[in-house]
Formats: sequence, structure tokens, C-alpha cells
Amino acid sequence: MKLYYAPGTCSLGIHVILEEVGSPFELARLSLQSGDHKKPDFTAVNPKSKVPTLQRDDGSVLTEWPAIAYWLAATNPGAGLWPGDPAEQTRALEAMDFIVGTLHGHAFSRLFNQGKYAPSEADHPKVIEQGRAMVAAAYAEIERKWEGDPWLLASGYSVADAALFYVTLWARKFGVDLPPKVAKHWEAMLARPAVQRAMKTEGLAA
Amino acid sequence: MKLYYAPGTCSLGIHVILEEVGSPFELARLSLQSGDHKKPDFTAVNPKSKVPTLQRDDGSVLTEWPAIAYWLAATNPGAGLWPGDPAEQTRALEAMDFIVGTLHGHAFSRLFNQGKYAPSEADHPKVIEQGRAMVAAAYAEIERKWEGDPWLLASGYSVADAALFYVTLWARKFGVDLPPKVAKHWEAMLARPAVQRAMKTEGLAA
Ligand SMILES: N[C@@H](CCC(=O)N[C@@H](CS)C(=O)NCC(=O)O)C(=O)O
Ligand SMILES: N[C@@H](CCC(=O)N[C@@H](CS)C(=O)NCC(=O)O)C(=O)O
Repeated sequence: MKLYYAPGTCSLGIHVILEEVGSPFELARLSLQSGDHKKPDFTAVNPKSKVPTLQRDDGSVLTEWPAIAYWLAATNPGAGLWPGDPAEQTRALEAMDFIVGTLHGHAFSRLFNQGKYAPSEADHPKVIEQGRAMVAAAYAEIERKWEGDPWLLASGYSVADAALFYVTLWARKFGVDLPPKVAKHWEAMLARPAVQRAMKTEGLAA
Repeated sequence: MKLYYAPGTCSLGIHVILEEVGSPFELARLSLQSGDHKKPDFTAVNPKSKVPTLQRDDGSVLTEWPAIAYWLAATNPGAGLWPGDPAEQTRALEAMDFIVGTLHGHAFSRLFNQGKYAPSEADHPKVIEQGRAMVAAAYAEIERKWEGDPWLLASGYSVADAALFYVTLWARKFGVDLPPKVAKHWEAMLARPAVQRAMKTEGLAA
């Protein structure tokens, strides 16, 4: 298995899951700043030009954060990253979809790249303001729906926690106030050896 | 079970799945034009202000398209809407996430509401142009990854087909050229009684 990743991006969450699973994997590092994800070497693997991209041992390529997370969790039941009960599985999907699709895809995305939203540079501060409001609203909703302690789900640690972890790295970078359960979650994640290994390999500091 | 929906929006896909499942369900109709989704009656149910929202028989509320689809498919195995094999399940999630998160969430979203992107009205034609390019690229990727006939997955009809169906309704509305497998898929969907019932109830014409 080979994970195409870019340090400190959403692929960090999948990197953490691979470390939790504990089977051997290879890493292929991309620099988004250098546009590696738009070069032919990578677009031949994933024409969507996105990380995380997972190449499986049979050569097949898997994309989309929640799908990669599900695949790793479902095919490695011993790692205990996927709940057994359909209601909890659904809750894990709901949390991952909201974190990846909305909190990352709509809210943080506005803090990372205003040009994707507003062609006029004069409007970029408004895009940032809108992004900050969306980040705060999404975190409030995550806190409101929280069921476990310190993990998101009542059933315990799951791949959904790895999704929350990567966005919270960004929240801290952008000085976003974390609600209490999210703040506690961040600390609990940092105490996990798998998280520490992934952070170290990517050259990241908490 | 009660589905909060707005006619012709992404909730149509979940409406189709409910019709496929065949258990009794209630419908609560919202008008996004009238802002029903932002009124207290609805935000008390789903503070995210989004359809589809599914209220289950125990009163608990489920949000996020792929999570709702998974729940309905997993708890109604007799309907045959969820593949049995983890690799195919993963492929279903990958397709749903890409359709809902990227093709709908990033691409079509730009055709529906330019103000969400660019504060300056003069920039709206650029947002539309960008949206159209993103829609075309996403459809090309869906066509490239296609594995079944006429359904998306090699293993047959699944909830992922209901996701593709609702975006293709929009594609036709916006005059988007459909690649051949997507066009055939649209016709195959229209021939399903469940699809016909959902369209009729929502007052939609193909
Ligand atoms: N829908 C994708 C989103 C992945 C994504 O947005 N990845 C970012 C890094 S966090 C990326 O590759 N950005 C490069 C670009 O958009 O040009 C998923 O769920 O995996
Ligand atoms: N991430 C949500 C997206 C749902 C969504 O975008 N719904 C649209 C209708 S297609 C909506 O409710 N829009 C109202 C609004 O954004 O104000 C999901 O997967 O269900």
C-alpha cells in the first residue's frame, strides 16, 4: 500500500489511520506548493489531483477521505477503528462527511485559498470572514452532537477521530477557538503513539 | 421515519432510496426559496439548515447524504441497495462522496448560487464558468471510473446510483453534455418505478 500525501494537509488523517492499522505502507510525498499534484506523474495515478490518494497492493487507486478511511478500517478489523453497530457506523460516516465535506471542504477551504471563491482580490477579506464564521458554526455543531469521551463516538475511538484531528491542526494554525470537547479531543489524539509517529514523519509540530 | 426534503434538490436522491426500500415513510416538504430551512421549526430539527434530513422512528435525526443512504441501505438489506463486498462498499462510498462533495458541493453549487462564492456581482459570470468546467471534469472522472452497466458499480444497483441521479437532473436543467454511460444511466433510472414515484410526488418532470 502506498499513500500519496502532502505534509499537514487532510492526508494527515489517513496517515494517522495507517499508523493505527500498523501494517507496512509506503509514503509518497507531494508538495502542493510546487504543484506536484498537477504533474503528469501524479495525475496518471489520480486525475482528481487530490491527496489523500491510496494505491492498494493490487495497484488499484482509492480516493475520497471517508472511502479510504472506511476501506482501511473495514479490511483491518483487528485495529478496532470501525464500530460494529450500524447506527454507530452511520454516525461515523455522518461525522466524517460533515468534517471533510463541510468543515474542511467549505469552511477551511475559504481560509486556505480565497482565489478559488472570489476572482477579485478586494473581496478576499470577505471570503475569510465568511470562512471563519463557517468554521465556528461547524465546530459548534460537532460539539453539540458529541457523544463519546474523549472520542467522538459513544462506541469509542474510530476513523472519525482522525478526521477531526486533521482539521483541528488547521484550527490551531488559524487561531480558531476550540469548544471544550474538541480541545480535549486534540490533547487525547496527541497522546496516541500513531499520531505522534505520523506528525513526526510529516515534520509537524503540535 | 420522516424525510425533510425540498423538491428537486439533493434530497430527491434520498427520496428515491426510501421508495426503493418500500417501508412506510412520511414526507415534510420545505421550500428553500421561502427559506423554510432557516426557520426555527426546522433548525430545531437540523441546525445545519440542510436537506436531506431524516428523522428516524426513535426521534433521532440523521444528516449528510452518504450517511443517510448508508443507514437506509444497511438497515434494509432486503432492498439490495448496498453491496456485500468491502471493496464494492468502498467504491460506493467513493462514488457518493465524489458526487455529493465535489460534483454537487463544489461544482453545481457554483451554478446555483454565485453569491456564496463571489461577493461582487460582476464576478458571477466567472463563477459560473468555473462551475461549468468543474461539472464537466467531474462527469469525465465518473465516466472514466465507471464499472457497471447500466449502474455505476460492477455489483449492480446501489445507493450510489441515486446520488448520480439527482445531480444528473441538474445537469439536464443546466444543459450540461452527458457522457454516454451517464446518459444511459439517466434513462435506466427513469425506468425504475421508485424513481417515477419520487419524481411524481415532488412534481418533477424528466
Ligand atoms: N474530496 C476530497 C478532498 C481532498 C482535498 O481537498 N485534498 C486537498 C488537500 S487537504 C488537496 O489535495 N488539494 C489540492 C488542490 O485542491 O489543488 C477527499 O475527500 O479526499
Ligand atoms: N453535506 C450535505 C449537503 C446538503 C445540501 O447541500 N443540501 C442543499 C439542497 S441540495 C440545501 O439544503 N441547501 C440549503 C442551503 O444551503 O441553504 C449533505 O451531504 O447532505
